[in-house]
Amino acid sequence: MINEKVKQASSILAEEGIDLWITFVRESEVNNDPILDLILGANCTWQSAFIISSRGDAIAIVGSLDETRIKETGAYEVIGYTKSINEPLLETLKKLSPKSIAINYSENDYMADGLSHGMYLTLTKILKGTEFEKMLISSESIISKLRGRKSTEEIRRITKAIELTENIFDKVSNFMKPGMTEKEVAKFILREVDSAGVVTAWERDLCPSVFTGPESAGAHAGPTDRKIEKGHVLNIDFGVKVEGYCSDLQRTWYFLKEGETSAPEEVLKAFETVRDAIQLAAEKIRPGLEGREIDHIARSYITSRGYNEFPHALGHQVGRMVHDGAGLLCPEWDRYGNLPYLKIEEGQVYTLEPRINLEGFGVATIEEIIVVEKDGGKFLSHPQKEIFLI
Amino acid sequence: MINEKVKQASSILAEEGIDLWITFVRESEVNNDPILDLILGANCTWQSAFIISSRGDAIAIVGSLDETRIKETGAYEVIGYTKSINEPLLETLKKLSPKSIAINYSENDYMADGLSHGMYLTLTKILKGTEFEKMLISSESIISKLRGRKSTEEIRRITKAIELTENIFDKVSNFMKPGMTEKEVAKFILREVDSAGVVTAWERDLCPSVFTGPESAGAHAGPTDRKIEKGHVLNIDFGVKVEGYCSDLQRTWYFLKEGETSAPEEVLKAFETVRDAIQLAAEKIRPGLEGREIDHIARSYITSRGYNEFPHALGHQVGRMVHDGAGLLCPEWDRYGNLPYLKIEEGQVYTLEPRINLEGFGVATIEEIIVVEKDGGKFLSHPQKEIFLI
Repeated sequence: MINEKVKQASSILAEEGIDLWITFVRESEVNNDPILDLILGANCTWQSAFIISSRGDAIAIVGSLDETRIKETGAYEVIGYTKSINEPLLETLKKLSPKSIAINYSENDYMADGLSHGMYLTLTKILKGTEFEKMLISSESIISKLRGRKSTEEIRRITKAIELTENIFDKVSNFMKPGMTEKEVAKFILREVDSAGVVTAWERDLCPSVFTGPESAGAHAGPTDRKIEKGHVLNIDFGVKVEGYCSDLQRTWYFLKEGETSAPEEVLKAFETVRDAIQLAAEKIRPGLEGREIDHIARSYITSRGYNEFPHALGHQVGRMVHDGAGLLCPEWDRYGNLPYLKIEEGQVYTLEPRINLEGFGVATIEEIIVVEKDGGKFLSHPQKEIFLI
Repeated sequence: MINEKVKQASSILAEEGIDLWITFVRESEVNNDPILDLILGANCTWQSAFIISSRGDAIAIVGSLDETRIKETGAYEVIGYTKSINEPLLETLKKLSPKSIAINYSENDYMADGLSHGMYLTLTKILKGTEFEKMLISSESIISKLRGRKSTEEIRRITKAIELTENIFDKVSNFMKPGMTEKEVAKFILREVDSAGVVTAWERDLCPSVFTGPESAGAHAGPTDRKIEKGHVLNIDFGVKVEGYCSDLQRTWYFLKEGETSAPEEVLKAFETVRDAIQLAAEKIRPGLEGREIDHIARSYITSRGYNEFPHALGHQVGRMVHDGAGLLCPEWDRYGNLPYLKIEEGQVYTLEPRINLEGFGVATIEEIIVVEKDGGKFLSHPQKEIFLI
């Protein structure tokens, strides 16, 4: 997978018109750069430079003790040094003779801000007096594209995480009964996570989130001692991490009252509105559109059916992190800064998660995951078609 | 413990004549600053400033979502913000009106280099045009002292890790027999580590290191399929991490040949030389001496007894990391830079680990751990007095 991503980085550089990208790090076990997971998959000790060019070069300059393990990644021509990185780094730059150099810092995007300030000072000292000194720019646009556009292997891993999550949803459907607490449901799910030998996609005390009935918190809170009652709408927000990649799904259940054989009309209508809003967004999504356009489609469908708009974005990217940064399907609200205007790209993986609060019942919400293809969104999850009845 | 360390930081600031220390971070789960383990013990999401003053102030300015968990640390007056950190940060600085401000970057010490370059740019923009703009210096001297001088609670944790290590050494003494491989011995130790519910102090494939006989690698290599034979000197280098703190000890065994009731004279002499060099160093160590002075005492004792000097430092600091940075008991060799000249401080915890290669037998080496007190080194480990016989 490292090889796939390094090659992809080269083509993104060519596309962006940037000749070279240097990721400069040391002691990555302590001072990690989050991009190393994607382009290296190993740790380095001494000052190290991972150099990728728009012409397909991939060169790692690392301390001699790290040479073997960096070679084992198979993605780089490795140059080892014993005394100082200065000479091999300068020689390599002269050989590649770039006109522009991106380095691993970013004010806006913390996922692209792995360069420490001490290391920045070191790098500028090494380059002082050379033609390269004035070329340094942020690599945030490269990293955003590289994280966003998933490779075949990345899609496979996300799909595996989704399948496991769906299996656990099936099991919890058979487990839940009125009278159980949110915490009991969460405990059952965590046992399944543990026995599958994986970890939750986000902090374990918030994953799964279980919300039952009209008084539940509704989002970003841990499970409580609140008991499931007949007549409750219950939803679960949950994901796992498999081989470093996350899922993030939500499903909704209704607990039948005595004599009921289906959910009340108003519950069904809200559920179906959420479901159809997701379908609509998945149909309309295209590379080249802005995130806000797809958010708007789902949002206006929901308000057109007489509901309040949901108080958050329609969807976020998923990858190594459950919120994988940049490109967001969100409205033009101040707090989202420039994100609503970022262009959707082929290969990005998004959640779609509108919600409707149903007074007296709980929250109707579904969260699916799609990958953006040329002609629309392809579901990686198996979309929930009907509200689950218990 | 966080409280202890924050108070200690205040007094180090006073001692260094620095008014304020700001640790500036965001999304610390992804972009970690290693100092947060010592002064916060939690993670933060939005841009956050942890401000400690020489007068005893400890103020955390954090995003509103993080307020609760930062308050729970009990070490800071917490100021939450929702829109921007700029105003509360500037107001706090004005109120504290410092003449000097240290921030969390360092060219020399990666343990003190948690500030990302993107965050540095953000901070300088916030301070632009204020009197504080020109005050920024590196906090590396503060961090080096803060990591080095262990609090009571830190000593308790290290001692616990040492005790567990010594227990496992006792068990492995009863387990080892001629004919076993280094790998089998390592496997036994790792089972004990797992059943104690702790982790090894460094990478599991090098911890424990087991070296038996004259052809063994001797240092920094994993256990092999080499078999223990009668007449071998065997040593084990091993440590565990307990509540975030490490041990790092070495012990030496001799496998008796048929008819032997003690180790050969030359093995005993080498073992005793190593043992006595450690005692001498522990007796002579004092706050205020330079690391090289103590290294010299042990090193020259060993050469005075007719042995070659050991090819490494006498000892390193132990703490959250097994090599806990800065202050080292080492000779004035180029590769150690300015480290031999750093002053030893009260409360620092050092290993003492000279070695003697014994041709035809193996390596005689012991590693003990001491804490520096006013009038010498106090052993936290129970020093090995005699070579263990099997």
